[in-house]
Amino acid sequence: MNKKLIGVDLGGTTIKFAILTLDGEIQQKWSVETNILDDGKHIVPDIVESINHHLDLYDMKPEQFVGIGMGTPGTVDIENGTVEAAFNLNWKEKQNLKEEIEKGTGMKFAVDNDANVAALGERWKGAGENDDEVTFVTLGTGVGGGVITNGEMVHGAGAGGEIGHINVQPNGYLCTCGNHGCLETYASATGVVRVARDMAEEFAGKSDLKKMLDDGQDISSKIVFDLAKDGDVLAERVVDRVCYYLGFACANIGSLINPSYIVIGGGVSAAGKFLLDQVDSYFKEFAFPSVKKSTTLKLAELGNEAGVIGAASLALKFNK
Amino acid sequence: MNKKLIGVDLGGTTIKFAILTLDGEIQQKWSVETNILDDGKHIVPDIVESINHHLDLYDMKPEQFVGIGMGTPGTVDIENGTVEAAFNLNWKEKQNLKEEIEKGTGMKFAVDNDANVAALGERWKGAGENDDEVTFVTLGTGVGGGVITNGEMVHGAGAGGEIGHINVQPNGYLCTCGNHGCLETYASATGVVRVARDMAEEFAGKSDLKKMLDDGQDISSKIVFDLAKDGDVLAERVVDRVCYYLGFACANIGSLINPSYIVIGGGVSAAGKFLLDQVDSYFKEFAFPSVKKSTTLKLAELGNEAGVIGAASLALKFNK
Repeated sequence: MNKKLIGVDLGGTTIKFAILTLDGEIQQKWSVETNILDDGKHIVPDIVESINHHLDLYDMKPEQFVGIGMGTPGTVDIENGTVEAAFNLNWKEKQNLKEEIEKGTGMKFAVDNDANVAALGERWKGAGENDDEVTFVTLGTGVGGGVITNGEMVHGAGAGGEIGHINVQPNGYLCTCGNHGCLETYASATGVVRVARDMAEEFAGKSDLKKMLDDGQDISSKIVFDLAKDGDVLAERVVDRVCYYLGFACANIGSLINPSYIVIGGGVSAAGKFLLDQVDSYFKEFAFPSVKKSTTLKLAELGNEAGVIGAASLALKFNK
Repeated sequence: MNKKLIGVDLGGTTIKFAILTLDGEIQQKWSVETNILDDGKHIVPDIVESINHHLDLYDMKPEQFVGIGMGTPGTVDIENGTVEAAFNLNWKEKQNLKEEIEKGTGMKFAVDNDANVAALGERWKGAGENDDEVTFVTLGTGVGGGVITNGEMVHGAGAGGEIGHINVQPNGYLCTCGNHGCLETYASATGVVRVARDMAEEFAGKSDLKKMLDDGQDISSKIVFDLAKDGDVLAERVVDRVCYYLGFACANIGSLINPSYIVIGGGVSAAGKFLLDQVDSYFKEFAFPSVKKSTTLKLAELGNEAGVIGAASLALKFNK
């Protein structure tokens, strides 16, 4: 009997769903808009309804599934299957996800936070090659991540994987967390732009990036990387600085836990090999010699499917 | 039937042995000198003989033991129970520890490196309070450590726990590993002295530490900490600098894997609460807010018994 998994990737604008085989192959996928009105009280019922509706559509029964796994923003209590402080969903109060979704669908349910779930996805079916030792770093609006050691997600005392808040520059930029010099302040999409603005002020040479900033144009991390690829001197320096901090953080991750793979994903990683090679060069400058050989930096491979795939993998534990 | 464990802590000068209960209580202990002559070829036979001799002495049989666990210097292959590159034992070639010791004693055998084994000891019966999330940092001649997540030792791709080689100062002191600015170059016993010598050169005020260094006296990290406790201005600055780097490294360990406890041991940690409080203050400056609350820095509690206790715990896996 070939049972299936359901993966749910709950985000602030859409909820992505997928039905997967136990090997992690996506067989069906769909998505619905996230309705965050009324303190987000429609979200869980919408998830339940959408799953039940699609099971009807595909003529499938809950018994054909091992269970449902979900990634969510906010602070997750994995044991109890609850979440709170998910502000982009308007969830201020604690939500009993496990209780409501198990009751509503008749399937077992497991949950973790969205960054961890994406890490699990990349580890299982993406750049992590299903290795037991994978660290995932996602460069988006912020910098997040997830750490897998001995084949298991590291939650630590509850706040494991705060990779964006590794300090890379004492007395550096002020971070939203209140500290100064967190990786996120340099290597997130907004961080890259901040570095660009800062370096532009002291830059005197010829640069399109400088001109754009002086003209008050909106710039993005993509523009910075594109200009650097085209040889814009200022943009090259900005990218060098961002990659320096990323390489420094990756080296220290390597010296501590020596993952087989450090997988870099998220919007900023769209800069691809151009980014990876420069990060790797600083990684090799700072990492312990045997770590340089045994830890490989890679680009993420699953894009935004990492979420549903990793979420589904949470339900594998029910397959006994 | 109350079976026992044997723990062996193999060092460059002595080999420590202990017989423990399954709860980790030491019932007997003894030690022998390490004979590193003839490429260290006497070491394994000496271990076998010493164990067999003491079993005779206590009128015990191999069947009364779950197994033997050992910590050793060098690069350990845990699966195969071999070790190589243990230079302070004169072991250049690969040693088949598991094969020889199991054959010689009739008991099951497990091995890991000495820093990891000390971490397991402190986790099990020391400052780690048997928590599943413990990182151990040992400040000795070098700086080493071990990382435990989800209750398991993290080996990563083979070189996990190289805490001494976390970079804390880009372009800092040259390390034996070839990199610049590793934690070990500042926070090991020799590192503390190096910081003292360096800071003394630029120090103009009144200081006994300065006078000792100018007189060409031998100083130790203990002298530096003792003088700092007595209010010597230069020594205070040296300790502040060392604690800054330790706090920075601990904060970044915290943000990555959020251990419940970061346990600080080794010779330098004999400075006690005086050291810990200053490290903690920098830790709190650099750590992510929720990590400050959930990760606690503590001093090691087992002293040099951590090795035999942690080693013995390796054999617990045979207790089925």
